[in-house]
Amino acid sequence: MKKLINDVDNMLAGQLAGLTAAHPSLVLHRDPVFVTRADAPVAGKVALLSGGGSGHEPMHAGFVGQGMLDGACPGEIFTSPTPDQMFECGMSIDSGEGVLLLIKNYTGDILNFETATELLHDAGVKVATVIVDDDVAVKDSLYTTGRRGVANTVVLEKLLGAAAARGDSLAKLQELGHLFNNNGFSLGVALVACTVPAAGKPSFTLAENEMEFGVGIHGEPGIERRPFNGLDDTVDQMFTTLIEHGNYQRPLRSWDIERSDWREETQYKQALRRGEKVIAVVNNLGGTPLSELYGVYLRLAHCCAGAGIEIVRNFVGSWCTSLDMYGVSITLMRADEETLALWDAPVNTPALRWNC
Amino acid sequence: MKKLINDVDNMLAGQLAGLTAAHPSLVLHRDPVFVTRADAPVAGKVALLSGGGSGHEPMHAGFVGQGMLDGACPGEIFTSPTPDQMFECGMSIDSGEGVLLLIKNYTGDILNFETATELLHDAGVKVATVIVDDDVAVKDSLYTTGRRGVANTVVLEKLLGAAAARGDSLAKLQELGHLFNNNGFSLGVALVACTVPAAGKPSFTLAENEMEFGVGIHGEPGIERRPFNGLDDTVDQMFTTLIEHGNYQRPLRSWDIERSDWREETQYKQALRRGEKVIAVVNNLGGTPLSELYGVYLRLAHCCAGAGIEIVRNFVGSWCTSLDMYGVSITLMRADEETLALWDAPVNTPALRWNC
Repeated sequence: MKKLINDVDNMLAGQLAGLTAAHPSLVLHRDPVFVTRADAPVAGKVALLSGGGSGHEPMHAGFVGQGMLDGACPGEIFTSPTPDQMFECGMSIDSGEGVLLLIKNYTGDILNFETATELLHDAGVKVATVIVDDDVAVKDSLYTTGRRGVANTVVLEKLLGAAAARGDSLAKLQELGHLFNNNGFSLGVALVACTVPAAGKPSFTLAENEMEFGVGIHGEPGIERRPFNGLDDTVDQMFTTLIEHGNYQRPLRSWDIERSDWREETQYKQALRRGEKVIAVVNNLGGTPLSELYGVYLRLAHCCAGAGIEIVRNFVGSWCTSLDMYGVSITLMRADEETLALWDAPVNTPALRWNC
Repeated sequence: MKKLINDVDNMLAGQLAGLTAAHPSLVLHRDPVFVTRADAPVAGKVALLSGGGSGHEPMHAGFVGQGMLDGACPGEIFTSPTPDQMFECGMSIDSGEGVLLLIKNYTGDILNFETATELLHDAGVKVATVIVDDDVAVKDSLYTTGRRGVANTVVLEKLLGAAAARGDSLAKLQELGHLFNNNGFSLGVALVACTVPAAGKPSFTLAENEMEFGVGIHGEPGIERRPFNGLDDTVDQMFTTLIEHGNYQRPLRSWDIERSDWREETQYKQALRRGEKVIAVVNNLGGTPLSELYGVYLRLAHCCAGAGIEIVRNFVGSWCTSLDMYGVSITLMRADEETLALWDAPVNTPALRWNC
């Protein structure tokens, strides 16, 4: 294994220091490690905090900045950050309007974010949580009970970041978060596995004619291994699955702001239907050339047109990666006028920047 | 070889159609193939045209738009586009103020761009050319007489695009182009080769402890194969070479607007020195995780600080790739206040977007 690193143990600290050196609008905090906007806390605004294992860059630290996250907590590669990271980050970004914690649905993340939520509450910070579980591939998986949180997390960071910037309250942001989570559907495929630096070899091996259909962003298995028959066939299968697996209900836990305690409620996803408008994300899982992503987009647009679904916004690029995995994920998110206004609102982060 | 394509022969057409489907501000022309701004020709403005072999995405078509290119001509993978592509593209973007052709220094590109220049001139279009030869690795190479044009091409597209947008004349843009080319220095290294779809296997093989030092963006050899000893050692060697190989003179050909003919003149590069300011680009050659690019940036910033060179702007990401090559290039470009004003000017393209 060759990687542009010095040694596995000190790799992340240098990479985060490089990010903040290149982007002075961000600050790297150490001991514990987290990244915030340099101008945090931003007065009069609810703060957005996300985080998760490293290896998915630019998610999450690359989305810290105006109109998106106020803070991000990176864990070790594919490993949840710890509650003390989240607590200290939350304390440093709270302006008094409260902190919304955006959590990808993995067992480790949920546990640590819940502890951090309680610590912040005990310290007098208004808190709320939103879980993201957009991956339609699996009901349960290696690291998850329920569906995994993948690239729609970034869409939520964008939309909720814009809503926070326009002054929405913590309760309103949580409500929007649940709505946006229920509106988003993702699915990934891998042609070649990633190599985790500490492991030093690819996480799994696929034959020359195989793909991992429904792969997770840590290389964990998805729906099944399927024959790989080229671009169009693959995208067609992905699109069909995104629609067919789109109806589900599941219990999700979130922090009840009124009662200051956890509540669990059944949430519902309704599959995309003819006549709906969507934001479409074609996301590089790591090592895929950009040109191939545009090939995916073309076929996806064809599938959407055939199903009477209108793509009204799109993003094609690297948002939620899995180190150097050769593969792609597709996210479709139902979008009404309010959603589009939030999407179009100014954003200025290392990895996403427009209209400002 | 697995790639997210249908078949090698029709791959590019679909990928370009995907690009323009995702970005309606661009238009794909067929027969011959080229991409333009949808609003071209833009009245009162010199048009910028670039192009080259495909496989380097987002360069060049991803940089078509406000504040950068008016048109881009993609060839087959790693193969120059043809004069008829460039001619038709030039005709469709010319507003009457003329067309500046930006050419990377490869033998095939030079030949075809020169023919296109003459065709445009014969058709009554004011033309000028600028050759980019920023790669300090080699004096001559597999596809080149002289130094190769690599990622500094994108910097020129940004800066000259901004200068064209502010109303600079064709002659002034050519003069700035020569200046910016002489101010820029690039060097690449590969850890793992790319796979050209039509070849179906990696272009070359490196041992587990080797890197191709000074690699070209088609996988052509550079300075030499060297032992790979991790991030810092690699970046240190790259930085040293960028400085030490920075002084050179060479004859470059360009179209003489006054005389309407070719002229060849000796141009000079002067190595970067203590006290100078630079724009620094850490460019993904394809399959390298973003996190590793930030590790490269941190060490590069350290090298620059040690040499008394101040990084005043930076870009870390994928600009000028070589399909899925695992590797990185560094570009340093001397930058005065005017250069920085052009860098900061609004740009709105698929791959680069800020301040607008």
